[in-house]
Amino acid sequence: MGDSGIVIIGIDPGTRVTGYGIVREVSGQVVLMDAGTIRTNTKKPMCARLGQIYSRISGLISEYSPDEAAIENAFVASNPASALKLGQARGAAMAACAVSGLVVSGYEPTKVKQNLVGTGRADKSQVAFMVERILGVKNTGWANDTTDALAIAVCHLNERRFARMAGK
Amino acid sequence: MGDSGIVIIGIDPGTRVTGYGIVREVSGQVVLMDAGTIRTNTKKPMCARLGQIYSRISGLISEYSPDEAAIENAFVASNPASALKLGQARGAAMAACAVSGLVVSGYEPTKVKQNLVGTGRADKSQVAFMVERILGVKNTGWANDTTDALAIAVCHLNERRFARMAGK
Repeated sequence: MGDSGIVIIGIDPGTRVTGYGIVREVSGQVVLMDAGTIRTNTKKPMCARLGQIYSRISGLISEYSPDEAAIENAFVASNPASALKLGQARGAAMAACAVSGLVVSGYEPTKVKQNLVGTGRADKSQVAFMVERILGVKNTGWANDTTDALAIAVCHLNERRFARMAGK
Repeated sequence: MGDSGIVIIGIDPGTRVTGYGIVREVSGQVVLMDAGTIRTNTKKPMCARLGQIYSRISGLISEYSPDEAAIENAFVASNPASALKLGQARGAAMAACAVSGLVVSGYEPTKVKQNLVGTGRADKSQVAFMVERILGVKNTGWANDTTDALAIAVCHLNERRFARMAGK
C-alpha cells in the first residue's frame, strides 16, 4: 500500500438506516475520512430504498476509493421476516461493493466488540468511547449506526494487522 | 406505450440460481423476448455472487429496456438464516431495478399460481404448461426458476390489464 495507507469502508446495513464509516490507516495511525448514515424514506417502496442504499454506497466508493470493505454480519433474529428485510439491505450494500471490485469481510457484532473493547458483551457506549479514542475525535454526536460502521472498519484494520503479524 | 407494447422483466431471485424472463405485450399478445437463469459460483464469496446478480440484471435491463419489473415475494421460510440469504439476493436484484429507474411489483407465489392457473395450489408442471401456452412455445426445457420468472412477468401483465379494465 505504501505511504498513502490503506482505506477501509465499514458498513452497518439496515433498510431504514445504514451506517457507514471510512477510515485510513497510515503508519499505524487510524484517521477518520468520513462517516454518517444513509436514511431511506420509509414512505417509498422498498425497491427505491434499496436503490438508494446501493447508489450512496457506490458514490462513497467512487469518492474515497477504499481498498477493502467490512460489513456487520447480520445478527440473525428469531423473526424470518426481519431477517429477509435485513438481508435485502445487506444485498444492496454488498452488491455495490462487489460491482466496484471490493472484497467484503464480514464480522459478527460480538467479534467487533471483542476486538475493540476486549469483551463481546461490551455495551454501545463502550464501543463508541473506543471508536472516538482510536480516531482521536470527541463528542461527535454520531448515530449508533455510524459508530457501529466505524467500529467494523477499525476491527477489520486490526484483524488485517494481526494476520500480517502472524505471517498469514 | 403505443404499438411497441410494454416490456416486463420478471425475476425469481435466489443466491444460487436467479431466474429471469422478459416478455412484451403487443395488442394483447404476450411475446417471449428472453429467459434464463443466473447461476452464481457457489465457491465464490457471497459478495461476489451478489455482484454477479446485480450486474446480470443491470445488463438485461440495458439490453431490453423493460418498462416495469415484477419479482416473486419471498416465501418467508421458518428458517431466519435462509430468509437472510434470500433477502440478500432480492436486495441485489431490486437495487439493480431501482438504479435503472424501474418500478418493481412484488407477487406472492400463490398469487402467481392463482393468476395463471386459477388456483394458488397449482403444481409446478401446471404453471409451466400455462407459461408455455401463453407464450406459444413448447418443450423449452426451462429450469423451474426460469419458468417461475416468466410466470411472474405474465402475472404482472395480467394484473395491469385487470387494473386498466377496472379503470384504476
